[in-house]
Amino acid sequence: MPQDAPVVKKQAVQHYGAEVLFYDRQTEDRTLFTEKIAEERNLTLIPPYDHPSVIAGAGTVAYEILAEQPELDCMMTPVGGGGLISGTSITAHGFNPKIMIYGVEPEQADDTRQSLQLGKRVMIAPPSTIADGLRLQSPGELTFPIVQQHVTDILTVSEAEILQAVKFALLRLKLVIEPSGAVPLAAILFNKLPKKYKRVGLVISGGNIDPPVLTSVMEQK
Amino acid sequence: MPQDAPVVKKQAVQHYGAEVLFYDRQTEDRTLFTEKIAEERNLTLIPPYDHPSVIAGAGTVAYEILAEQPELDCMMTPVGGGGLISGTSITAHGFNPKIMIYGVEPEQADDTRQSLQLGKRVMIAPPSTIADGLRLQSPGELTFPIVQQHVTDILTVSEAEILQAVKFALLRLKLVIEPSGAVPLAAILFNKLPKKYKRVGLVISGGNIDPPVLTSVMEQK
Repeated sequence: MPQDAPVVKKQAVQHYGAEVLFYDRQTEDRTLFTEKIAEERNLTLIPPYDHPSVIAGAGTVAYEILAEQPELDCMMTPVGGGGLISGTSITAHGFNPKIMIYGVEPEQADDTRQSLQLGKRVMIAPPSTIADGLRLQSPGELTFPIVQQHVTDILTVSEAEILQAVKFALLRLKLVIEPSGAVPLAAILFNKLPKKYKRVGLVISGGNIDPPVLTSVMEQK
Repeated sequence: MPQDAPVVKKQAVQHYGAEVLFYDRQTEDRTLFTEKIAEERNLTLIPPYDHPSVIAGAGTVAYEILAEQPELDCMMTPVGGGGLISGTSITAHGFNPKIMIYGVEPEQADDTRQSLQLGKRVMIAPPSTIADGLRLQSPGELTFPIVQQHVTDILTVSEAEILQAVKFALLRLKLVIEPSGAVPLAAILFNKLPKKYKRVGLVISGGNIDPPVLTSVMEQK
């Protein structure tokens, strides 16, 4: 995990029995860091997004949504490395090729939006968005072509909009959603999606939020 | 609503389009208050627990749980006026008469526990527990005989145990549960239930919790 991962995430993973190792995401490369440990200890590396099985696994979320509600016009997911939106879009288009897929990134971490506009993977500086799960600098090698093929557009939301969505989820949906998971909800609440869609499915994923962040969310006007 | 109901509950209900009227639960009687308004405005009163249809409605929660997981040894619910536990226990015993039913009350609002022990409905002083949905002074007229017939025991939890359960739900279950809804979880976390049960179903109901309470829960050690 990055050293600045939420404490609650670290504690939960340790409590479930895992050993957690940390790297500095400003100065170290995650891929090199994990590959080195995997080699030293003879472990199998499970990458967070850039692997066909991981993409397929992420797609099961969309499968569950569409099994329950097949008549969607549009689906939205957060975009970090692109695994979730790749699995979502492949699954959705297996159900119905007309479902429009939108990704949502924080304004400060719009590497995939920029990459789509330029038609190639760009690398941005390490973002400082509160959505810690979306602090990616570049789309994945496997995921980016899938995003190019299947995704209609990438929307962006501000830090304040993300916090408002977390607060709305807490007080009205009664769900603890981490900032990274709240970006599609923020896009809906702040009218970023074209108005023409009538039935929109949101993937809201991740509930690792530290108590001080929860407290500051509560204090948002 | 009582004047001291959570602000978030009042705001949510108003936002959904209702007119909210308040009474002072220290000095006014809720039943008289609502009957008077119903008569003045020619409205139908829907009682919160002491009515066969309300009890049956509450029982649908147990129906959903048991449809998904019929092999339960035991079910637990919060106990306020007794509607939820009445519906739960009738439904559960329709599935399987061997399912043990436990109710949970705050230590400060144990009117049903005391009533069961004495074999008749007792009236306690207005309780000041943080579990505002369970601040009842007496079990219902219809619900109490059902509780006597179907419920194995009433467990109690302290105010600190309730807050710990709310915190556990927030940080580990990622659910916003109001103190009233958290009492069965508190009973499990603090070992109030006999150890012999292997498969226990909890009804966790209600997410109306004010931001200052959420903040204070976060600050619990």
